[in-house]
Amino acid sequence: MTETAAPHPATYTPTDRTVPTRSKERAAYDHEMVHSILDEGYVCHLGFVRDGAPVVLPTLYGRVGEHLYLHGSTGSRPLRMAGQADPGLPVCVTVTHVDGLVLARSAFHHSINYRSVVVHGVAHQVTDPDEKREALDALVDHVVPGRSYDSRPANAKELAATAVLRLDLAEVSAKLRTGGPNDEPEDLGLPHWTGVLPLRKGYNAPIPATDLAPGIEVPDYLAIL
Amino acid sequence: MTETAAPHPATYTPTDRTVPTRSKERAAYDHEMVHSILDEGYVCHLGFVRDGAPVVLPTLYGRVGEHLYLHGSTGSRPLRMAGQADPGLPVCVTVTHVDGLVLARSAFHHSINYRSVVVHGVAHQVTDPDEKREALDALVDHVVPGRSYDSRPANAKELAATAVLRLDLAEVSAKLRTGGPNDEPEDLGLPHWTGVLPLRKGYNAPIPATDLAPGIEVPDYLAIL
Repeated sequence: MTETAAPHPATYTPTDRTVPTRSKERAAYDHEMVHSILDEGYVCHLGFVRDGAPVVLPTLYGRVGEHLYLHGSTGSRPLRMAGQADPGLPVCVTVTHVDGLVLARSAFHHSINYRSVVVHGVAHQVTDPDEKREALDALVDHVVPGRSYDSRPANAKELAATAVLRLDLAEVSAKLRTGGPNDEPEDLGLPHWTGVLPLRKGYNAPIPATDLAPGIEVPDYLAIL
Repeated sequence: MTETAAPHPATYTPTDRTVPTRSKERAAYDHEMVHSILDEGYVCHLGFVRDGAPVVLPTLYGRVGEHLYLHGSTGSRPLRMAGQADPGLPVCVTVTHVDGLVLARSAFHHSINYRSVVVHGVAHQVTDPDEKREALDALVDHVVPGRSYDSRPANAKELAATAVLRLDLAEVSAKLRTGGPNDEPEDLGLPHWTGVLPLRKGYNAPIPATDLAPGIEVPDYLAIL
């Protein structure tokens, strides 16, 4: 029998754009890591080029397998641009979580612990009605998992007013920093406190809409958050 | 006496790039609002154009008055590009806070409550040594206010390895969504729970570095967080 490599998880193929110029050890390409970072976020930062200059806008997103979906009014700038541009709209979509503040003894080594995903690619408007509905469900379920089953689906007028962009997860990388400060050996005797201040994340109690009818209780999918 | 307008706070002049194509009522241009959103963030998303395509990277920043400072290794891509490009590097810098999840009765009206700032402009490398030191202090103090006084300042070698970009706050806008869902009148009788799930933010207990000398206590500026 020939020796075979152990099976390894699916990974994105690194490209010139997804290999960082420094801190290469912080980069990751496995699907599982990328998906978990994407799924934990609420807002991505969508970058595109307008009149030769960069534009970065925060926007909601959803993921279905290896597709990322963004949406917006059919009148919004990037959605219009993606519709006009025959070959699609070149974009860069970035999602970042800040996990902790890293306080080193030296100013130079101050940092943050974070996890980010950067997706490069060309976004296309979704024209297939079934894919569009699936994408919009994914956008709602990305905000609160299961919520698409507990809300009124988009009607024809709303569907017509909403444009959806699809971006394939192909040229993708994650980048992470974890752990404590990396001080220089000669700084270890300095008197400054050093360590990590972790950021706490969670939810406060749901605030019912002022016009919520009496008797409609907070659903289980919110109570467990 | 002639009637005079009441004094109003300083504002940024709207431009074609900073007036949104929709939800114009969510845009704000006053310095105070923009500064407060910037000062509360840890990471901005820096957009620039490379080989005609957009790139969006998360990075730390600091603010001194009407200047935003970013920093990085002199070897990092945008810093190199800003140094090479004689007139500077066209950038878009965006900072976003997600404050709550907005659950409407209709899928269409799901949203998030957020505050964001978008800065358009041209970033230049800082070459003046005093400004560079001030910018690096601002970057450290942005992570933890006052921390620059309780850490070793950058030495000559570290200063030489660090490039700092300055971006003037001139073409700037804030955008905000607050409050509950905006459901259609015909949806008010639907049985779905509706309201806002606020995100909680804060800090967990500081984690000392494993090599922290005994007797160095958590400083007051962390204990109050």
